[in-house]
Amino acid sequence: MIPPDHPRYRSLVTREMLAESVRKGIVSMEGLTAHGRGEAFDYFIGERTTRSALYAERTAAALLLSARNPVISVNGNTAALAAREIAALQKACGAKVEVNLFHRTEERVNLIEDLLRNAGSDVFSGPAERLLPLSHDRAWCRREGMFSADVILVPLEDGDRAEALVTMGKTVIALDLNPLSRTSRSATLTIVDELTRALPNITRACRDLSGAEREELLSSLDNNYLLSEAIREMTMRLSHALE
Amino acid sequence: MIPPDHPRYRSLVTREMLAESVRKGIVSMEGLTAHGRGEAFDYFIGERTTRSALYAERTAAALLLSARNPVISVNGNTAALAAREIAALQKACGAKVEVNLFHRTEERVNLIEDLLRNAGSDVFSGPAERLLPLSHDRAWCRREGMFSADVILVPLEDGDRAEALVTMGKTVIALDLNPLSRTSRSATLTIVDELTRALPNITRACRDLSGAEREELLSSLDNNYLLSEAIREMTMRLSHALE
Repeated sequence: MIPPDHPRYRSLVTREMLAESVRKGIVSMEGLTAHGRGEAFDYFIGERTTRSALYAERTAAALLLSARNPVISVNGNTAALAAREIAALQKACGAKVEVNLFHRTEERVNLIEDLLRNAGSDVFSGPAERLLPLSHDRAWCRREGMFSADVILVPLEDGDRAEALVTMGKTVIALDLNPLSRTSRSATLTIVDELTRALPNITRACRDLSGAEREELLSSLDNNYLLSEAIREMTMRLSHALE
Repeated sequence: MIPPDHPRYRSLVTREMLAESVRKGIVSMEGLTAHGRGEAFDYFIGERTTRSALYAERTAAALLLSARNPVISVNGNTAALAAREIAALQKACGAKVEVNLFHRTEERVNLIEDLLRNAGSDVFSGPAERLLPLSHDRAWCRREGMFSADVILVPLEDGDRAEALVTMGKTVIALDLNPLSRTSRSATLTIVDELTRALPNITRACRDLSGAEREELLSSLDNNYLLSEAIREMTMRLSHALE
């Protein structure tokens, strides 16, 4: 048992929960490594939502609300960490929720879909086809879902799928703690924030954005600016580290 | 299967291999998350050996060659990632190779010792005693090995053991990608580099260092300088990242 007064309580409980999710077959072992990687980047932004990240989150809400066929892509880590937050966002923006996995088996897809449904999501399910221009299993998706989406939210993504989706002409919203990743650089909009902080902020913005603010956010979208702000935050923290 | 054309092929294959090592009982689940954290820091130094890291690696060789009883401490991640590199370094510097684990069971110790032997190491084995001033299982070591070592190389270490070893008067060489960790700050010499790049560099230096260069490296050892150089590299890379 982790004592609740431990200074890293939240982080340790999350790790334990993810290890448990590996045992259940929801998270892949590779997902644990990816999580550790995210932890290090989160440390560099101070484990809080920065001002520029909040701006990105409100812009994400504007994009989702303006979409014709928005889709939220969910992998194992996202489902394990934030199934409830995904359900709340779906209610607020009306997006389809579709499972897409790098380490794909039918059994894992079913387990993750069940987890999402139990947390309140209406999961866009059914037979998938190999529709995305990718050599690995993230190519599998549904024709009426991800394949025909105009706006797609991809939390905890791998870089080549993000690139492929952009090449297909889609508006890609990435949720990635690493501002230097291929995903972050190729996405239309990148949110450099931790999943369970970012999703509720997007949901809140979906509920409270005025029409005028929506328009303004969409017209001022500048992903390079957002990435450079995230990097500036990290650089500042690092350069004061040995003081 | 990970496609060989994936731009993160090496990193993904490593993750897969570590996951396989968890299944075999060599790496702990916590080891996977720790690996991910290391990956993020490696990203910040450009996934290459920096000039200051190479200097630290050559200094490490000088320390190992000048030691009376040098020991290389090996944990699960180190064995899984670099068993061959450990064997090569042992041949070049004559150090003892000894297993020391945070998540210790006799079975894991045996598995890791076998892995090291199969890769060519002469493993310093046999009954361990609780000899280091630590409350957890990293306290277990051998009297004629780690306990009486004067110079000890600790790759992928946890902070309080590094501190304990320094307090015991030992020269501690840490291999740690995080220049801000307790291990990095308390070690005599810290190499901020990735394991499979660092170990061959130390091995090469063991073979080619002249007596004069050895003396010079030993007399100019300044760990604060090395850590601040590592942080400077990371800060520089970050601040130029979007250019």
